[in-house]
Amino acid sequence: MLATLHRYLPVLAWARGYNRQLLGSDLIAALIVTVMLIPQSLAYAMLAGMPAQMGLYASILPLLIYALLGTSRTLSVGPVAVASLMTAAAVGKAVEAGYTDAVGAAIALALLSGLILIVMGLLRFGFFANFLSHPVVAGFITASGLIIALSQLKHILGIEAHGENIVDLGLSLFRHLQQINPPTLAIGAGALAFLFWARSGLKAILIGAGLSPYSAATLARTAPVFVVLVTTLAAYLLDLGDRGVALVGEIPRGLPSLQLPAFSVDLWSSLAGSALLISIIGYVESVSVGKTLAAKRRQRIDPDQELIGLGGANVGSAVCAGFPVTGGFSRSIVNFDAGAETQAASIFTALGIALAALFLTPLLYYLPKATLAATIIVAVLSLVDFSILRQAWRYSTSDFIGLVITIAVTLLLGVERGVLSGVLASIALHLYKTSRPHIAIVGNVGGTEHFRNVLRHKVITHPEIISLRVDESLYFANAAYLEDTIYALLAENRDARHVVLMCSAVNEIDLSALETLEAVNQRLTELQLSFNLSEVKGPVMDCLARTRFLQRLNGQVFLTQHQAIEALKETLECTGNDPQAQDTAAGEYKPPGQKESTSGKTKPDQIR
Amino acid sequence: MLATLHRYLPVLAWARGYNRQLLGSDLIAALIVTVMLIPQSLAYAMLAGMPAQMGLYASILPLLIYALLGTSRTLSVGPVAVASLMTAAAVGKAVEAGYTDAVGAAIALALLSGLILIVMGLLRFGFFANFLSHPVVAGFITASGLIIALSQLKHILGIEAHGENIVDLGLSLFRHLQQINPPTLAIGAGALAFLFWARSGLKAILIGAGLSPYSAATLARTAPVFVVLVTTLAAYLLDLGDRGVALVGEIPRGLPSLQLPAFSVDLWSSLAGSALLISIIGYVESVSVGKTLAAKRRQRIDPDQELIGLGGANVGSAVCAGFPVTGGFSRSIVNFDAGAETQAASIFTALGIALAALFLTPLLYYLPKATLAATIIVAVLSLVDFSILRQAWRYSTSDFIGLVITIAVTLLLGVERGVLSGVLASIALHLYKTSRPHIAIVGNVGGTEHFRNVLRHKVITHPEIISLRVDESLYFANAAYLEDTIYALLAENRDARHVVLMCSAVNEIDLSALETLEAVNQRLTELQLSFNLSEVKGPVMDCLARTRFLQRLNGQVFLTQHQAIEALKETLECTGNDPQAQDTAAGEYKPPGQKESTSGKTKPDQIR
Repeated sequence: MLATLHRYLPVLAWARGYNRQLLGSDLIAALIVTVMLIPQSLAYAMLAGMPAQMGLYASILPLLIYALLGTSRTLSVGPVAVASLMTAAAVGKAVEAGYTDAVGAAIALALLSGLILIVMGLLRFGFFANFLSHPVVAGFITASGLIIALSQLKHILGIEAHGENIVDLGLSLFRHLQQINPPTLAIGAGALAFLFWARSGLKAILIGAGLSPYSAATLARTAPVFVVLVTTLAAYLLDLGDRGVALVGEIPRGLPSLQLPAFSVDLWSSLAGSALLISIIGYVESVSVGKTLAAKRRQRIDPDQELIGLGGANVGSAVCAGFPVTGGFSRSIVNFDAGAETQAASIFTALGIALAALFLTPLLYYLPKATLAATIIVAVLSLVDFSILRQAWRYSTSDFIGLVITIAVTLLLGVERGVLSGVLASIALHLYKTSRPHIAIVGNVGGTEHFRNVLRHKVITHPEIISLRVDESLYFANAAYLEDTIYALLAENRDARHVVLMCSAVNEIDLSALETLEAVNQRLTELQLSFNLSEVKGPVMDCLARTRFLQRLNGQVFLTQHQAIEALKETLECTGNDPQAQDTAAGEYKPPGQKESTSGKTKPDQIR
Repeated sequence: MLATLHRYLPVLAWARGYNRQLLGSDLIAALIVTVMLIPQSLAYAMLAGMPAQMGLYASILPLLIYALLGTSRTLSVGPVAVASLMTAAAVGKAVEAGYTDAVGAAIALALLSGLILIVMGLLRFGFFANFLSHPVVAGFITASGLIIALSQLKHILGIEAHGENIVDLGLSLFRHLQQINPPTLAIGAGALAFLFWARSGLKAILIGAGLSPYSAATLARTAPVFVVLVTTLAAYLLDLGDRGVALVGEIPRGLPSLQLPAFSVDLWSSLAGSALLISIIGYVESVSVGKTLAAKRRQRIDPDQELIGLGGANVGSAVCAGFPVTGGFSRSIVNFDAGAETQAASIFTALGIALAALFLTPLLYYLPKATLAATIIVAVLSLVDFSILRQAWRYSTSDFIGLVITIAVTLLLGVERGVLSGVLASIALHLYKTSRPHIAIVGNVGGTEHFRNVLRHKVITHPEIISLRVDESLYFANAAYLEDTIYALLAENRDARHVVLMCSAVNEIDLSALETLEAVNQRLTELQLSFNLSEVKGPVMDCLARTRFLQRLNGQVFLTQHQAIEALKETLECTGNDPQAQDTAAGEYKPPGQKESTSGKTKPDQIR
């Protein structure tokens, strides 16, 4: 009972030992994060196509709930770039279908995502996230970053542009290019230039001015806040709103009233797929940030409880009229670097944002949207990393293909299809690879009991024994391939009288593969060849022992390949009067140099 | 050039050596098969919901084309039960959508299936069929057999009934039960009873009457023809048509005119999915029959060329107004047993059916549909085999689950969803299994260099070395699981100072898994533990060598687990002044009896 309580309420773990020193650290971190989050929340609300205040709403209750339920001590939850982009895409579809308005759809999306995450957490389905391979995630984030950056260009230029992929976006931008608003461009380009410079140059200058590296880094991170202040002031003083610069405008003051989102079968079923994708992508992003931060302080996070924590945060976001949230990379890093020790920092941050929603919104009236767009562009371009392309290209073809598919589909057909194609492609590639396993002819490494690939090592082989190792579990997708390979080897090795299949890499034999082995056994029996297995693993042997295969097997199961070859050599010597066997000096090892290896004739495409 | 010709026209292989003796065998076989095929073709046309003559049409040109393009010498191509049922389902959907009539849809389906098969053959995509696991195929055939048998009951009873799954069919039959037509029932039940008895009793009686077992078996196979003759005669003499017995009726005389089916985007795209399923199911059935027969005569078939042969046959069927065809089990067995030596037998069979279409159709006017239904029921019930359930249950849970899903969905939701769920379920189960691989703590088998699972063998372990073997390729789906397992082992083995991962069963490490190994290496470095690999295979090592992982690895890559443990023991002895190491008598083997193995504390669910 108590254990269950502790499992589902990780807050109990840190709240008990809370003290004044931790409080100090957490308060400072909360202050810095709050200042950074105010413009960020507004920016991501704009990216998601939501009214500005929803960004603030999504940064209050979700933080409080995650603080109670989450297992990471320093993860900072709230609106993030990729999830906001996916929200915009999903909401667009639902609004087009006429089910509800954008705000209603976003709230429903947050609720659905939250429920999906909680159910997955209770069922301990965290492993689902494992099916997003590293190249798929990296490619998806990079492509999303590009789309986001491109989608924000319109705010920098002060023009209209729409589209969910780079082609549409690019064309739309190009078509409206003559409508550029010069004051907007001045604000936007200036903000962009300053923010890019702040990333690299500002810190060095601050250190040069005598600040400690830590203070300099922290101060450099507040550059967006500085840009917000300056451009807001400029807009106010120069009346930029009247000169065509889009401003944030009126933001309703106060806190959202808590409410349960309306239930609608049509709306929910149209959003379910998108909610699932947002949940899983958000979860993967969040857990990877959480793991990284936890590892730095030798802490651990519980992936299944994280599902519940993030799910609770999203339900919380829906209840207070927010949109989907997750653990963000940049905000969590700031929180961590600013010295946050526990989730109390997030609780104080939530209070800070709540105060902002209560009192600061009138000051944001003159904030130019171009400034927010500039902060988004600078933030997401740091996510764009094409080095993964080179890395995957060097490492393996299938990883590279999966990556390219993910990036290409995301850029050309949008985020949802992008991540889906990436997952399906990586699963299909994996299945394809395992359906054509590496099969090696093996021979004895002279003077040892080891057997190795004849193509890689100098080994001793025997023309009357086909000794092969299959480097994959045997299952339905590759059973036929193994069968074909064995038959092809038989056709090329007419002298062969024994076949030994070395199973050291076979972790499973499923029913389809068992049928195939039975067929091979029968075929070899008809051809008067023996069929033997060696180095069969315990769990596999357990399975085989439950069938009649072992009784039907015309050869034996040997503990090691060495024992198999020794025993079969003896049989060959005993029946040495067989004319074929005499031809090839049956029963004698050939030294590696002279070997007229049976496997030498095997086609290279079968033996990799 | 010549090789290409030979590859794509297997007929060249057998036509050259054709002689009078082969001609004699083939002619006899063709005669027997023709007699058997006439009622069978009509029956499967009825099952597919097509006019009777289409069954004959589908048994002429397809046979000729397969004879030229197919690699099996004895496979008999034409309408078969399962493909006919799938045709009925697909055609029903297209007709309901209003695109065309049933005949037009069936012809388009045959054309599409043919094109799909040919394209797959040219791309050498035969391996696609491997993703239909044995339990899925077996379960699907069994469930389809049940549906077919149930769907034909209406003809036996002389009532109406519709539905594509057993619930709908059963309810529909039940609702119309009071409309039973007694003369129809008499014919149908009589035919059924005779045919069932002929399967078992007739052959014995014929042998008792002095026939050779071979002649008796052949004669017993013609039982359907006998039933057709008797019931047709009865219907004619007793005027059963006027007494409510449904008869085949007028069949247009003559051969179909060749024509190219009309192209329609809507129709084709609505049929594409069904065509793909029919193609693959038909191909799998056909290849498995072809393989079995070829193996009996030490011949081989080429799976990729088979795609082209079957594809050509289906295009041929479409061109002469037939419906989808494939290589059938029962007809091929009859062909083979009747002594067919080459595809010339099929050419003669096609001629025989053509003659029947030209001259025999008036004689079939009085053939009761109940008789055809009885032949179908007897044929498909021989496909129904629930023993696979017991077999899979005993063998492995995942095979059993895949099988049950296939059978249940096929019975309850119809054939297309059945086979699709089966394929998806077996892939998902396979991925799930490989995502939670078997990970064993291994120890040294005293006196040897072998390392085995501590839970299965008496082995020597060492408290300061975590020595584990992962029995699966490392890829995105299981990388996180391995990481979690290693960290859990670290938490339980506070004395550990070295980790050795034995990779003898690791056939691949993909980029995601590489990232994980890098993370593990970094974590272990921080904890001052060494991370070592052993028995890494050649192809895997090639991949790793292309990255910086091997330079970053804080330990070594050993050729064997034995070398790894020996080397690490020495390090422990050298640094024996470490207090922890002294506690546990570092560097000394413990005999199996006394071992206070570190692995003993490991949770059983992690170490299977």
